[in-house]
Amino acid sequence: MELLENKIIKSGSVLPGNVLKVDSFLNHQIDVNLIYELGAEWKRLYADEKITKIMTIEASGIGIACIAAMHFNVPVVFAKKSKSSNIGNDFYSTPVVSYTHGNTYEVIVSKRYISPDDRVLIIDDFLANGSALRALITIAEKAGATVVGAGVAIEKAYQQGGDNLRDLGYRIESLARIKSMDNGKIEFC
Amino acid sequence: MELLENKIIKSGSVLPGNVLKVDSFLNHQIDVNLIYELGAEWKRLYADEKITKIMTIEASGIGIACIAAMHFNVPVVFAKKSKSSNIGNDFYSTPVVSYTHGNTYEVIVSKRYISPDDRVLIIDDFLANGSALRALITIAEKAGATVVGAGVAIEKAYQQGGDNLRDLGYRIESLARIKSMDNGKIEFC
Repeated sequence: MELLENKIIKSGSVLPGNVLKVDSFLNHQIDVNLIYELGAEWKRLYADEKITKIMTIEASGIGIACIAAMHFNVPVVFAKKSKSSNIGNDFYSTPVVSYTHGNTYEVIVSKRYISPDDRVLIIDDFLANGSALRALITIAEKAGATVVGAGVAIEKAYQQGGDNLRDLGYRIESLARIKSMDNGKIEFC
Repeated sequence: MELLENKIIKSGSVLPGNVLKVDSFLNHQIDVNLIYELGAEWKRLYADEKITKIMTIEASGIGIACIAAMHFNVPVVFAKKSKSSNIGNDFYSTPVVSYTHGNTYEVIVSKRYISPDDRVLIIDDFLANGSALRALITIAEKAGATVVGAGVAIEKAYQQGGDNLRDLGYRIESLARIKSMDNGKIEFC
């Protein structure tokens, strides 16, 4: 999506360690008008899919998912980062590996907010190794829901997370796919 | 605001320890159409205030703030929960006391996303003791920004957080103010 690619080139920056810093518009400060346009694009892509629910994961997915949900006219459910291992029987839970922070944490979703009738679209800001996306897919499928696909803002396509999920048959619509960030220069697929 | 009060009565529940559970529409599953109406009301209340930025705090404030920001046509900045005490000089930080979790944590906001030119509206889902709101006010004022006021979905008016801030001269617009939840019965102011 040209709008997002142009924004990344204009306002993003590459930090040491292949970190793409886009916190001026995506995951600290949020450009709500830009995100609204991303939502319109996901709606166009998934127009015929009868989405009933949008799922995401806290924290930086929430704003994007909520604005995107305006186009779909469905509720958002965000997976919470559990602080306790005692989460009872009312939640689905699954581990997420964070390569950024070098740890593993549990995310939980109440059983009341996802059901076998749901056709789920997963929305997130980034896709790299795919750990967060896999966790959300796991939870949705534990609930018996149908995972229609995912809408991702930025995919680091030189990592394998997205393609591994596509190989498993999941539809992943990333609006900007980064081929490389060598020497600080961002190239898109 | 009648719409929100009715929703709380219909879909909320009171748990032991005076916990108001509204996670079916506000802070786990999010009813984006309802939140859009809350945003319209805050816009009506702050119509003349030339808001330039909406601030909130992760995680459950983000969705509400982003949807509300659609009415104001301004960016959202959300304060992040710091995991490290070494946050450098590029951030404003301040502690937040969580009475729910019985701990204190730092929240941080990049200095790049709040400036003396900003006229800030703070948005959050809940106001009880006011600790999160005070933290956001502190950060905005450290940056030299003007805090125009706050938009809160649900205020536990039987706690003092809101009135203490009003006594200090801050404008706090809570769309549902709970007077009591004795014996599981919710009464509004």
